[in-house]
Amino acid sequence: MAKNTNIRISLPAVCFVWQIAMIILFGVFIRYNEESDTRWIEHRRRKNISTNLENDFYYRYPSFQDVHVMIFVGFGFLMTFLKRYSFGGVGFNFLIAAFGIQWALLMQGWFHYLDENDGKIKIGVENLINADFCVAGCLIAYGACLGKVSPVQLMVLTLFGVTLFAVEEYIILELLHAKDPGGSMVIHTFGAYYGLTISWVLYRPMLSQSRHLQGSVYHSDVFAMIGTLFLWMYWPSFNSAIADHGDGQHRAVINTYLALAASVLTTFAISSISQKHGKLDMVHIQNATLAGGVAMGTASEFMITPYGSLIVGFCSGIISTFGYLFLTVISMLIAHSLKTCNICGIVLCDKTAHFRVAFYCGQLINTFDFKEAVANRTVNIQGGYQAAGLFVAIAFGLVGGALVGGILKLPIWGDPADANCFDDEVYWEVPEDEDENILSRHPNMNHTRGMPDAYQRSHV
Amino acid sequence: MAKNTNIRISLPAVCFVWQIAMIILFGVFIRYNEESDTRWIEHRRRKNISTNLENDFYYRYPSFQDVHVMIFVGFGFLMTFLKRYSFGGVGFNFLIAAFGIQWALLMQGWFHYLDENDGKIKIGVENLINADFCVAGCLIAYGACLGKVSPVQLMVLTLFGVTLFAVEEYIILELLHAKDPGGSMVIHTFGAYYGLTISWVLYRPMLSQSRHLQGSVYHSDVFAMIGTLFLWMYWPSFNSAIADHGDGQHRAVINTYLALAASVLTTFAISSISQKHGKLDMVHIQNATLAGGVAMGTASEFMITPYGSLIVGFCSGIISTFGYLFLTVISMLIAHSLKTCNICGIVLCDKTAHFRVAFYCGQLINTFDFKEAVANRTVNIQGGYQAAGLFVAIAFGLVGGALVGGILKLPIWGDPADANCFDDEVYWEVPEDEDENILSRHPNMNHTRGMPDAYQRSHV
Amino acid sequence: MAKNTNIRISLPAVCFVWQIAMIILFGVFIRYNEESDTRWIEHRRRKNISTNLENDFYYRYPSFQDVHVMIFVGFGFLMTFLKRYSFGGVGFNFLIAAFGIQWALLMQGWFHYLDENDGKIKIGVENLINADFCVAGCLIAYGACLGKVSPVQLMVLTLFGVTLFAVEEYIILELLHAKDPGGSMVIHTFGAYYGLTISWVLYRPMLSQSRHLQGSVYHSDVFAMIGTLFLWMYWPSFNSAIADHGDGQHRAVINTYLALAASVLTTFAISSISQKHGKLDMVHIQNATLAGGVAMGTASEFMITPYGSLIVGFCSGIISTFGYLFLTVISMLIAHSLKTCNICGIVLCDKTAHFRVAFYCGQLINTFDFKEAVANRTVNIQGGYQAAGLFVAIAFGLVGGALVGGILKLPIWGDPADANCFDDEVYWEVPEDEDENILSRHPNMNHTRGMPDAYQRSHV
Repeated sequence: MAKNTNIRISLPAVCFVWQIAMIILFGVFIRYNEESDTRWIEHRRRKNISTNLENDFYYRYPSFQDVHVMIFVGFGFLMTFLKRYSFGGVGFNFLIAAFGIQWALLMQGWFHYLDENDGKIKIGVENLINADFCVAGCLIAYGACLGKVSPVQLMVLTLFGVTLFAVEEYIILELLHAKDPGGSMVIHTFGAYYGLTISWVLYRPMLSQSRHLQGSVYHSDVFAMIGTLFLWMYWPSFNSAIADHGDGQHRAVINTYLALAASVLTTFAISSISQKHGKLDMVHIQNATLAGGVAMGTASEFMITPYGSLIVGFCSGIISTFGYLFLTVISMLIAHSLKTCNICGIVLCDKTAHFRVAFYCGQLINTFDFKEAVANRTVNIQGGYQAAGLFVAIAFGLVGGALVGGILKLPIWGDPADANCFDDEVYWEVPEDEDENILSRHPNMNHTRGMPDAYQRSHV
Repeated sequence: MAKNTNIRISLPAVCFVWQIAMIILFGVFIRYNEESDTRWIEHRRRKNISTNLENDFYYRYPSFQDVHVMIFVGFGFLMTFLKRYSFGGVGFNFLIAAFGIQWALLMQGWFHYLDENDGKIKIGVENLINADFCVAGCLIAYGACLGKVSPVQLMVLTLFGVTLFAVEEYIILELLHAKDPGGSMVIHTFGAYYGLTISWVLYRPMLSQSRHLQGSVYHSDVFAMIGTLFLWMYWPSFNSAIADHGDGQHRAVINTYLALAASVLTTFAISSISQKHGKLDMVHIQNATLAGGVAMGTASEFMITPYGSLIVGFCSGIISTFGYLFLTVISMLIAHSLKTCNICGIVLCDKTAHFRVAFYCGQLINTFDFKEAVANRTVNIQGGYQAAGLFVAIAFGLVGGALVGGILKLPIWGDPADANCFDDEVYWEVPEDEDENILSRHPNMNHTRGMPDAYQRSHV
Repeated sequence: MAKNTNIRISLPAVCFVWQIAMIILFGVFIRYNEESDTRWIEHRRRKNISTNLENDFYYRYPSFQDVHVMIFVGFGFLMTFLKRYSFGGVGFNFLIAAFGIQWALLMQGWFHYLDENDGKIKIGVENLINADFCVAGCLIAYGACLGKVSPVQLMVLTLFGVTLFAVEEYIILELLHAKDPGGSMVIHTFGAYYGLTISWVLYRPMLSQSRHLQGSVYHSDVFAMIGTLFLWMYWPSFNSAIADHGDGQHRAVINTYLALAASVLTTFAISSISQKHGKLDMVHIQNATLAGGVAMGTASEFMITPYGSLIVGFCSGIISTFGYLFLTVISMLIAHSLKTCNICGIVLCDKTAHFRVAFYCGQLINTFDFKEAVANRTVNIQGGYQAAGLFVAIAFGLVGGALVGGILKLPIWGDPADANCFDDEVYWEVPEDEDENILSRHPNMNHTRGMPDAYQRSHV
């Protein structure tokens, strides 16, 4: 029954070995690009660039920092909603994102940024943004497995996730020449299918044993709102960070801002109408309000018009909230596995949002908006490539997720037993309970779960 | 006694209908401006602009994102301080801000940004900033009604608030040509009077019935500090976001930074001196520390000198904290209504801060600072127009608040009974209590307020 | 036994008098510089600057705001981890930072920015960044005394800390011409030794009397993660904020980003391997993950290469986490004082991180990296000056800390008794306990620690 969840050897081993591998690979392959190198001054002179401000750094750094906040605080705090898995939610998010960005710099570098003269990858601020993007897909997949896997499994999930992502992204962006500045396809659709497939492969029939830990408490829902809001507020930066200089970035921000605003209203509406007494559900507010940003991703730089953006947000808020309700019904019927995971919702909804909104709103866009777009490509042909890109993203998610899920089923990763899911006690030194506060005021009565006194002190 | 607070029809109806109206009005009126449109490239060529960086986007986007954080995290978390109204505080703030920015783009567009050639409103990043500003006024008004109104009432409050704001702003800035870059008058004074008047019209004689929910708990006060700090840190961006390029933005930042720093010290001083044992009060720290930013609003771009800024902050911190103390005494005497609302404090203090600080510090500014300002307008005449602007802001707040308060008194909006104020249970699915954590570890004992099991699961 | 902790006279007196002194000194000494003054337009014309964007404001403002968030939210929330000292952690951090930045503008101004023509200090955005930097040293020192000093003592600590910092910084940067863009030496080393020495002088033999308050609770650890993450995410801005325009800022960001990522992995590894069951410790995650940013400080702008940055992060994560473990063992042996302070850890580790990492990684840098750096100075000589700078920083910390510690030992500052350390009750009006929530729902049973009813209301 009680599995061995001791990761004292496996986690340090994975962290050390992989980090050393990163150092070696960085040593062999990665160098500064001409904008982050002291060569910039020569480059400026040679290219007759009038000012340091033309360094790409000044175009993109504010957006980069916003994206960085989304990855670490946004996703991190969104996953603190469970009553006893907040350490794991924000902590493991931190670990795998910190590893993922390094591996992403390499993988994306080999595919996109290899200098053919010297075989080196040249990096600058745009690479940092792309690495953060890449990790977002793995974090969405993490959401689908939240509370049910060990940190070692998460490292493996991330290693393969980033690898698959880079290949998929190369196919979609470089071979198919589909446009996806906010990563609706390459990040969200891939991440959702990848995570859901892994979660499906790791199916746990007896998960109801940890049912008492599968909900939120009042303050954990407020913590999760920190994540939601930073994701929501900075999504315009996410969708514009690597858009074209000038009007491209400007327009991507406006479109995303509007789509997000509209999806908040429809999320509140559907959330209220779907409950017997019209009460709002924090799960919807925490997740479905973001659908507008996801749905806008692919099209954020297009001349979609302001009202087109509102329509995208309107639809995606509805679809995403319905996605949750549908999910809830399903989960009540089958009464296991899926129902246990809130973020799983975001996963399915992101997918839903993208998949269906892309379908319906794609038509809306074609009908209303491209009329006034200054498009120098045939809309229909480009639309075909966009569809092909979506197919590739889904295929990579499903097949990759099945393979990685199979690897993660091996009994060597220290994952928790069904009765110990969603519990920080398994992988963390947890301080005494707030419930025991009153007791703890009387030092003599201070018994905290039989930990030796020394360990207790070690936290002080 | 028990009012009907079921908003299952009214809230979705309002959200859907108004959002659809937004889409239609955006379709008719709103287009990209020349900096966010693909025409930017032609515009650049025609105007002989040397670089994409001259797109207003790069001057204002970092400030815009800071303001965006203030609106959604700053105001949102400032309102989480009540022990059982954190969902409503941050959630309804989210809803009404998301609606308000859309309606503000239209209202402000009609008054300020209408292109006379084609009758369209042309939007760019500056419009997004102004929309966020406009919503700030309604959020301050929300603060004055926190916990006592339904989300439907808040939507109505926002609809009228934005409308009144746009007209008032037009009169103050375009007709009177008063200067108000940080919105001390048009945002804070208007919002404060608007909210207070509504709160006064909606007077609840029996509010003491929900007295047990009118305070904070330890962690809700810490959550509120998140709001305070993001407001405090980003206020320099708020006051500089739409200031003139170059030295204007630069100076507005310095002035606001200094005024805020000074008001922190005087707030701590007054807070300590006013309590019998010298203990500090979180309410003061959470709110009065912001007075320096509010008070500096109107003058932030002026050549007020660094020490002038410190004087403004010094005075406003004192006045604002005294405002709270005064408020507390009043509330103890009349023992109802007003005393129930913490944010009500910020409202009155913002007003107080502005009103009195504008009066006293306006004289200081005239005495000390304009001597070295390169002002190409007569100081006295401009001062007269500033006073007239302040009068307009107050008048709009009082009259508009009375009218909207009257509308909100109609018995159709689903507002809570006096005994159910300040309670998230009324409009939200609330998870089981933290108090019940111990019980909930034993699944058999898991009774959460008689909700059907299915609903409970739906949150998981 | 029970000391007099009433600060009703001393705290307001210090705040008022020092704030008035600031106003007078600012009046005499501080003016806008030519980029924040209306003279900017003449300056632009005279210097033939083509665009407002060349105003330093646009190079540095986004970084400044990130640093500002680090100081107030980053350090502030990092200090909320104690179960009953969150108000003091974030609140006193707010107070002393707000005072410190003003005093720093003066002190740094006299040493670095004095205009010899008119004897005035001319300030712009770079000064605001430097003031924030300067305060960081005092906040690290605060961490070493967390929970054991009064706010009045903290004001004194800050006054002297900023003064010592400015002199030390002047010697290191202006006389020795050592490079330290991220402030590893001038900020972190100085702050750590300063705080530890003060903490050592204020030694409390009976501190075990407040042992029951010396740990964290579940949610206070989550709050502390807000601080950690904002520090971690924005550290690239910290290290690049005052780096050279162009490639300098760009490279500092890349180097810091990579070092931080690497130190997360090694921190998780060492944290897990050091516990009997491999469980992770939040204390390590909250603090040691930041070591990469600290260690990179001095070298962040150098051509250290991307893999060099990873090596720095790798080493500093290990050393910093070991620092904690070592600290824990020590504290268990001597069983007092030191063991009580978590942040004390960050202090020692920052120092450790810097001191040892600087030693080892300095050699790595010399071996591997400068080969390809375009360095126009002799590496060895510069290295000597860097070492001299480090010595100066340590000396100022030790001697200054001893002096200030002596001053703080005077019995006039209202510091808490040993039994009342780590308790917000001493200096704050604390709301009723969450534990008492159930009771408080029945108003008749609402007894909150014998406070008079009026005071209770005053919080509402």
